[in-house]
Amino acid sequence: MDRHKALVFAYTKTALTPPKELGSVVIRLKKYSNTLRDALEDSRYTRGESSVHLPFDKTIARAVEDMVAATVSRGLKYVIVIGIGGSNLGARAVYEALYGKNGARVPLGKPQLLFLDTADPHLYEAVNRELKAHVKHTGEVLINLISKSGNTTESVANFEVLYAELKRRLGTALRNRVVVTTDEGSALWNAAQAHRFKTLSMPRQVGGRFLMFSAVGLFPLAAVGIDIATLLKGARDITPACMSADVHKNFACASAGVLYVHRRKGLRTYNQFFFNPDLETLGAWSSQLMAESIGKERNDKGKIVHEGILPLVSIGSTHLHSLSQLYFGGPRLMVTTFIYAPNTAPSTRVPRTVILKHLKGIAGVPLSGIMGALYGGVKRSYQKHGLPFMELVLPALDVYSMGQYMQMKLFEIMYLAHMLGVNAFDQPNVEDYKQESRQLLQARR
Amino acid sequence: MDRHKALVFAYTKTALTPPKELGSVVIRLKKYSNTLRDALEDSRYTRGESSVHLPFDKTIARAVEDMVAATVSRGLKYVIVIGIGGSNLGARAVYEALYGKNGARVPLGKPQLLFLDTADPHLYEAVNRELKAHVKHTGEVLINLISKSGNTTESVANFEVLYAELKRRLGTALRNRVVVTTDEGSALWNAAQAHRFKTLSMPRQVGGRFLMFSAVGLFPLAAVGIDIATLLKGARDITPACMSADVHKNFACASAGVLYVHRRKGLRTYNQFFFNPDLETLGAWSSQLMAESIGKERNDKGKIVHEGILPLVSIGSTHLHSLSQLYFGGPRLMVTTFIYAPNTAPSTRVPRTVILKHLKGIAGVPLSGIMGALYGGVKRSYQKHGLPFMELVLPALDVYSMGQYMQMKLFEIMYLAHMLGVNAFDQPNVEDYKQESRQLLQARR
Repeated sequence: MDRHKALVFAYTKTALTPPKELGSVVIRLKKYSNTLRDALEDSRYTRGESSVHLPFDKTIARAVEDMVAATVSRGLKYVIVIGIGGSNLGARAVYEALYGKNGARVPLGKPQLLFLDTADPHLYEAVNRELKAHVKHTGEVLINLISKSGNTTESVANFEVLYAELKRRLGTALRNRVVVTTDEGSALWNAAQAHRFKTLSMPRQVGGRFLMFSAVGLFPLAAVGIDIATLLKGARDITPACMSADVHKNFACASAGVLYVHRRKGLRTYNQFFFNPDLETLGAWSSQLMAESIGKERNDKGKIVHEGILPLVSIGSTHLHSLSQLYFGGPRLMVTTFIYAPNTAPSTRVPRTVILKHLKGIAGVPLSGIMGALYGGVKRSYQKHGLPFMELVLPALDVYSMGQYMQMKLFEIMYLAHMLGVNAFDQPNVEDYKQESRQLLQARR
Repeated sequence: MDRHKALVFAYTKTALTPPKELGSVVIRLKKYSNTLRDALEDSRYTRGESSVHLPFDKTIARAVEDMVAATVSRGLKYVIVIGIGGSNLGARAVYEALYGKNGARVPLGKPQLLFLDTADPHLYEAVNRELKAHVKHTGEVLINLISKSGNTTESVANFEVLYAELKRRLGTALRNRVVVTTDEGSALWNAAQAHRFKTLSMPRQVGGRFLMFSAVGLFPLAAVGIDIATLLKGARDITPACMSADVHKNFACASAGVLYVHRRKGLRTYNQFFFNPDLETLGAWSSQLMAESIGKERNDKGKIVHEGILPLVSIGSTHLHSLSQLYFGGPRLMVTTFIYAPNTAPSTRVPRTVILKHLKGIAGVPLSGIMGALYGGVKRSYQKHGLPFMELVLPALDVYSMGQYMQMKLFEIMYLAHMLGVNAFDQPNVEDYKQESRQLLQARR
C-alpha cells in the first residue's frame, strides 16, 4: 500500500462565491487548459508555463542526485545556501516545514541548512559565528551559490566574503566544496567553470519563482538528506487534479476563480492564514509567486492597469492576538485561505491546571488540541461574520504535502494570471531600483 | 557630554502630500493636544492615552528593578517569556533589534530570552529541547508569564506544560523562579498569589498593545541585562517633539497626517520597509498597534465604517526580490516608510572579487555599504515612480533608538485614530472567535 495515496487536500469552502459565477469563469479556461497540457509535456521548457513539467523531469532529478553523490559524505555539517527570492525561498520553505525555523528540530548529527540572503552584516556574522564554532575542515561544509541571472549583488557579495573567510581557515580545497546553480552560459556559469567550481543549471525560460522543482530548490534539500523523490511525487500526484475540468476536483482552478471573482469586486488582499507556525516561509514562497506574477503595471495587451493582489501571511494563533481585530472589524477587501496540518506529532498534554482552574477545557488537552480549537473557533467566527475564506487541510507536515501544495500553487497562479489578463512570467518593474543601486555603488569608487 | 543627545530622527519626506493639506489636518488637532498633555501627567492611568506617561513613571521602573534584584543572579541562563500579542512583541522587538533573531548575537555567557507565544507543539518542543540541554538547576531559569486579562488560553496552557516539565526535573523550588505579570486582581493574579509566585502589575486602563513601557515590556529585557533606563530615556526624550505644534518637528503627527490624507484618497496599506532585518519584530509590534487601534467596524459615533489600514512589514533587501514587482507595478494604494539604521558595526569588506569581476562596484565595499546602496537605489526609484514614502533614519540599533521609535509610534497611532474618528483603545471584534474556541474546547470533554 502506498501510504501517500491518502494525502489529499481536504475540501474547498467557496460558499461565499456563488457557484454559478465561478462556473462561468472556469468555462472560459478551456483554451488555456490546452496551453497547460502542452506545457506539461514540454521537456525543453520553451515557455513560462513549462515549470509544471519539472516534477516529471528525470534528467534534472538525476543531475541533482549525482551532485549529491559527488559532494555529500558522512561528515557534512552545514550546507550554506547563498541566494535570495526565488533562489532560496522554496528550499527554505520545505526545510522549515519539516524541521522548524532555523532548523530547530533537525535531528542531532544531521546536516543543517544555513541561509544567506540579503547583504546584512548581522546575518553574515550569525552564519559565520556558527561555522567558526563547528567547522574545522572542508568536508564539513558545502556552499551552494544560487543566482539565475548570475549577477545578484547580494548573493555575489555574500559568496565572496564567505568564500574568502572559509578559504583562509580551511585552505584551497574549499574549491571542491562549492556548487554554483545558475543559468547555463551566464557570466556566473562561466566564472564558475573557470574556477573549476561544480555547476548545476536550470531551464532558462522559467522564471526564478517557478523553479522550486529544479536544481534550485531540490539540491539544497537533497544535500541535507531530505527525500526529494517523495517531494516530486507529491507534485506529480496532484497534477491531474490541477488539470481537471471539474472545478470541485481542481483546487488550483477553484481557488484562482474565487480570487478572480472577488478581485473584480474590489479584493485587495489575499491572506494565507497558516495554523502551523513552521509554514511561515512556505507563505513567503507563495507570496512571491503571487506578488511577482499578478502585480503588473500593464496587462497582456500593454494597457496600464496596475493590477495586483497583496499576498499576506498570517500565523495562527499568533496573529489573532495582533491583527485579527483588523481582519474582523476592518475593510472587507480580503479573501482568506486557512491552511492547517492538524496531524503533527503527538504533543504534551496540559496537566491538571496549576494556576487557572477556571479556564475550563484546557486540562488534559494536548497543545495541538488547543491549536485545533482556536482554528475551529476562528473558522466559525469567519463564517458568522460573512468573511470569505477557503480551507486547505494538509494531512501532514511532510515533503509529500509540500510537493502537492507547491505544484498546486504554481497552477493556481497561472490560472489567476490568465483570468486577470496579465503575464504571469515577467517582472518588468524591478530593474529600475537595481540600476539605481548599481550607480550608487559605482559612485562610491 | 550625553552621547544620546545626537540621536534623532533624520527627516521626513512628505513631499508627496501637499504641505497645505497636511497643515490643515494638524490645525484641527489643537484640542486633542490638550488631551495628550493631560495624559502625559496622568500617573493614575485613567484613560487609554495615558500610556505616554509610562516612560516617566518612576514607580514602575523601580518595581521592575526590584524584581530583577530579587530574581536575577549570575548563573541565570534563560528567561522564558510566555505571552502573546501585546504581551511579548515589545520585549521581543527590542531584544532582536539588539541581539538578532532568536538572540543569535547574544554575547557568550549572557542570559537569553526564549519566547512561547502560540500553542504549537513544535514551538514548545524547540524551547524544551534548549532547556533540557542547558538547564540543570532552578537558578539558571526564570519564567515570566504575561497576560493582561489573565485568561489567555495559549499562555496558560504553555505555562502549565512548561511548569510541570521543569518542576519534574528541577524540583519544587521552581516556585521561586516564576514572575507573573498581569492586571492586579485578575483571576491569574489571585492564583499567582495563592501559589506564592512573584507578581508584577500593569495599569488596568491601558490596553496590551500600549504597555511596552510597563512591566510587560521592561521586566524581560531588564532580566537579561538590557539597559531599560536608556530605553526609557529615549522614550522620554522624544516626547516633547511628539507634542510639538510644529509639524516639522513632530514626526508622530506628520506621519499620522500623511497617512490620514492618503487614507481619505483610498490608501489601503501602510508598508514599513526596514533595511535592517533585525527590526522585523519591531515591525510586528507596530503592526499590532496599527491593526488593533485603527481597524474598526464602527467609528467613535457608533456608525459602521469598517475603517482600517493594513500594516505591512517589508525587509530590505529580501523583499525587493519577492514583493517589489507588486510595489512598483501594482495598485497604488500604499504609503511606505523606509526605516534604516546605517551605522551598524563595521562589517567585513567584499574582497577583490573571485568570481564576478564584471560586477563593478562591490569589491572593497563592506556588506553594510552594499545594503546602503540598495537602500539608496530603492528610494530613488520610489521617487522616480511617484510612490509616496517617508523616511526614518535610526542613528543606531540600540535601546535609545528603540525607546524613541516606540514612544513616537504610540503618539502617531493616537493622532491617526483621532483624525479618522475611531477609538484607538478598544478591540471589540476579537472576543467572538475566543468564545467559539472556548466552546470547542469544552465540547471536547
